[in-house]
Amino acid sequence: MDKIFKNIGIVGLGLIGGSLARTIKKRNLADTIVGFGRNQERMQKACGLGLIDEFYVGYEQGFKDIDLVVLGTPVKTIIHIAREVIPHLSPGTVITDVGSVKAQIVEQIEAIMPPGLHFIGGHPIAGTENSGFEWSLTDLFEDRKCILTPTDNSNQRALDRLKQFWIQAGSRVICMDVKTHDMILAAISHLPHMVAFSLVNAIVDMEDSKNNILQYSAGGFKDFTRIAASDPVMWRDIALLNKENLIRSIDFFEKALASLKDAIQREDGKNIEELFWKSHDTRRGI
Amino acid sequence: MDKIFKNIGIVGLGLIGGSLARTIKKRNLADTIVGFGRNQERMQKACGLGLIDEFYVGYEQGFKDIDLVVLGTPVKTIIHIAREVIPHLSPGTVITDVGSVKAQIVEQIEAIMPPGLHFIGGHPIAGTENSGFEWSLTDLFEDRKCILTPTDNSNQRALDRLKQFWIQAGSRVICMDVKTHDMILAAISHLPHMVAFSLVNAIVDMEDSKNNILQYSAGGFKDFTRIAASDPVMWRDIALLNKENLIRSIDFFEKALASLKDAIQREDGKNIEELFWKSHDTRRGI
Repeated sequence: MDKIFKNIGIVGLGLIGGSLARTIKKRNLADTIVGFGRNQERMQKACGLGLIDEFYVGYEQGFKDIDLVVLGTPVKTIIHIAREVIPHLSPGTVITDVGSVKAQIVEQIEAIMPPGLHFIGGHPIAGTENSGFEWSLTDLFEDRKCILTPTDNSNQRALDRLKQFWIQAGSRVICMDVKTHDMILAAISHLPHMVAFSLVNAIVDMEDSKNNILQYSAGGFKDFTRIAASDPVMWRDIALLNKENLIRSIDFFEKALASLKDAIQREDGKNIEELFWKSHDTRRGI
Repeated sequence: MDKIFKNIGIVGLGLIGGSLARTIKKRNLADTIVGFGRNQERMQKACGLGLIDEFYVGYEQGFKDIDLVVLGTPVKTIIHIAREVIPHLSPGTVITDVGSVKAQIVEQIEAIMPPGLHFIGGHPIAGTENSGFEWSLTDLFEDRKCILTPTDNSNQRALDRLKQFWIQAGSRVICMDVKTHDMILAAISHLPHMVAFSLVNAIVDMEDSKNNILQYSAGGFKDFTRIAASDPVMWRDIALLNKENLIRSIDFFEKALASLKDAIQREDGKNIEELFWKSHDTRRGI
């Protein structure tokens, strides 16, 4: 199998960046993986673990031979870091990111992209509630969807290469426009996180001095609220960057819950059952 | 180990009744397990699978030698079935149930309990989204909490025996009053189910002809909404029987979500982050 990219630079070695490094190593998708970050100690540790072959602290050197740059930092910093990295890249280099929100990132990075460099927004639909490369997994992307969001400005060859790269990493690649991406992700990922965070907070609010309600939480509750332990800073930024879609999704959810609450209040068993069948059949159908 | 009960009757062989039968068999907790139900074919199948040793169709015969009756039918039918079963029980028999709501069930069954028979409400905090003994598990109760809800009228010896029985079944037994039980379960079990049902319904409502949003649901969403595939009829009855506590829990949740939505709308990053840290720290602490 030909290597699509020879030297891959990963900026930000979190859960996703670290897992991508592990995947590239395991599947032999590149000759070298170079890590870039701000924290020397963290980079050294990642190097010691064999995730990366070499590393540079800062974004000024080490990019000359890189032919794929993956921006793996939190969504809010991606645009800023792209701005720092771009001047040091060699012609033909492909740049992508792994951010959970796409419209703002893609629009702003495309606006600063010089001729000869090719940016394509990306989002592997994978992750856990944990952060940092210590939690990285070799099979995180295996058989998972990876969404790429090319625009009218995208270079077709760069897109094809990036698509092949993610396929070789084990993912199923889907292309869509940034707006559709952000709308869909608001519904199936960002909304559930807001709901999980709020559910745990509601139960904290209910606690009284007599009863420690949370100590009774069983398996179902724990599975259900696992994502409420996700990184608050990362999710704050996602909520802010995808505000409009997220508010719209919360509106839909509030309406659905209000209908159910109303049916319970009216003790309308038939209506309650109908609402439960609707979600039952939908969920079984996934 | 002495057997606390010699002949156990299980009325209703669903997921819980079936799993209890498997547990009794595996741990050798009784000489005989007798199944009682309405559907001959189902009982025959359970007997063929070795879950029960014998069975009776209907609730009129077979109870003479039973010293523990477990009512495992859906919450709405428990009181009705208790009424049918009681006249046929021998003195000293202990009766319990496994219903997810306790106040109404315990109050109404105690009211019809003749002297010499002992009812103690019970609720093993265990289950999956599946229904029926075909899905029953030998280890469903292992290391899980089982709540018993004795009242001032409860026979102490019957309570002790039932407690020991559930301990021998692998559970950690906790006693509390029915009101506390119903309040806690509304918060950590019934509310999350209402939220999961409503979340799936909201996403169905959002679907448009262009985008099939649900096809993009990844692992996180699937884990989160697994309970939305639970039995609609069972959950309708739980919602109706625990109405007051459930509405109160939904109120708390609506407020928590509204605060977050408001912070997102105001783009108040500090406030959003605070709310996420609250649930993050709580969830990590469970």
